[in-house]
Amino acid sequence: MQRYFIEEALTLGTEIEVTDDIYHHMIRVMRMKEGEKCWFVDTNHELFQISVKKIKEKLVIVSIDEQVAQNVEMPINVAIACGLPKGDKLDLIVQKSTELGVNKIIPMTIVRNVVKWKQDKMVKKVSRLQKIAKEAAEQSHRLQIPEVTSVMSIKEIIALSKDYDATIVAYEEEAKVGEASAFAKTLASLSPGQSILMIFGSEGGLTPEEVEQMTQAGIIACGLGPRILRTETAPLYALAAISYHFELQK
Amino acid sequence: MQRYFIEEALTLGTEIEVTDDIYHHMIRVMRMKEGEKCWFVDTNHELFQISVKKIKEKLVIVSIDEQVAQNVEMPINVAIACGLPKGDKLDLIVQKSTELGVNKIIPMTIVRNVVKWKQDKMVKKVSRLQKIAKEAAEQSHRLQIPEVTSVMSIKEIIALSKDYDATIVAYEEEAKVGEASAFAKTLASLSPGQSILMIFGSEGGLTPEEVEQMTQAGIIACGLGPRILRTETAPLYALAAISYHFELQK
Repeated sequence: MQRYFIEEALTLGTEIEVTDDIYHHMIRVMRMKEGEKCWFVDTNHELFQISVKKIKEKLVIVSIDEQVAQNVEMPINVAIACGLPKGDKLDLIVQKSTELGVNKIIPMTIVRNVVKWKQDKMVKKVSRLQKIAKEAAEQSHRLQIPEVTSVMSIKEIIALSKDYDATIVAYEEEAKVGEASAFAKTLASLSPGQSILMIFGSEGGLTPEEVEQMTQAGIIACGLGPRILRTETAPLYALAAISYHFELQK
Repeated sequence: MQRYFIEEALTLGTEIEVTDDIYHHMIRVMRMKEGEKCWFVDTNHELFQISVKKIKEKLVIVSIDEQVAQNVEMPINVAIACGLPKGDKLDLIVQKSTELGVNKIIPMTIVRNVVKWKQDKMVKKVSRLQKIAKEAAEQSHRLQIPEVTSVMSIKEIIALSKDYDATIVAYEEEAKVGEASAFAKTLASLSPGQSILMIFGSEGGLTPEEVEQMTQAGIIACGLGPRILRTETAPLYALAAISYHFELQK
């Protein structure tokens, strides 16, 4: 059954008017008829079953019939910061990391970025990625749309890391020296309700100086196993590991 | 440094002649000169550093200079069987699962497959996927190229499962009923050197009858967390979880 993220708090047993994009998708795209049901997720991340009451010219009246308890969000709050990758890899990262439960996605400028985002294109690019996150959240039955932020510098990421219970940086060189457990140890130190920020380079990787800057600020350098993962694979690996650790192993 | 999979067993201190594709890539594409070095992985999955001795018209003589001990293969042998997905999703599954350490990839026919592979196109399709696996294995510094098999039926997969220490089928309905730990329990029951076969549906999912057929043969139905994962995301999630379990948590 189709689900939509609604920009308001819903109350069970009431009726509301739906317009614009969601009206268009429900009535024009999905061709819903009076009496048909679907899901609305409200601004409190609550899930409701609704039914179509009356279809008008540019609005549809729906009734909020049933609240459904469903916990599909990760037990810990996860943000990822990624160097700007080439091509449409950031689209894939946003789509897949949303499916895998991420809460915030931060595009990041690093020394070895080949790709630069021009200031005047920034808003458009972020809003496009935000749309991908919204669609992936609907499809994967999330109750929350991950936030895609504007591009941040490493300095800004380091400042932001103070708001998280743990911050790691994925660093291939750590994997090479045989470091295998820092990531698992970090996850083991976290409890449900806490938060983690994870930082990833893009194609060229992070420079030793960038990693040094981060570790001096208390960020933990971690390898993600012995194989070389591509730019877009590393965050997905880390998110799957977090889900496995907190959702399947418990 | 570039690496190549060589179709023979190499001996330290010897010289060999290289022709055809690898000759072409080394000399024409990478423009390697005499004295320059790269990596060869041989048919025993051993890694050697080699150097170019002499470049001739259609062959290059290289010397096998150094053997390098490197363990980048998963501690357990992992095969995945996937229903035929739409579009180029199987390309993505082959590429990413190779990076993530898979040993065998089996395209599988299921009732709800929208996509059908015609018998006369089969060889070409498999050889194309095998090429993607080889390139991903080189890029991710694997010592083994995963095998891509011909399409199998569920009956054939069930017969094959007898060769594996554990076989699971990822089944969304299991996730819905709150099953959260069968996958983690299965991994906990395996030791390094053992093997696992993991079965995934495609877009329409497996039918209850198909899953029934498998569980009656002793295959374990598992959820992969509370969120709905797309066809191409589920195998990547499971492989990342296996790597985390066996390579990072130990």
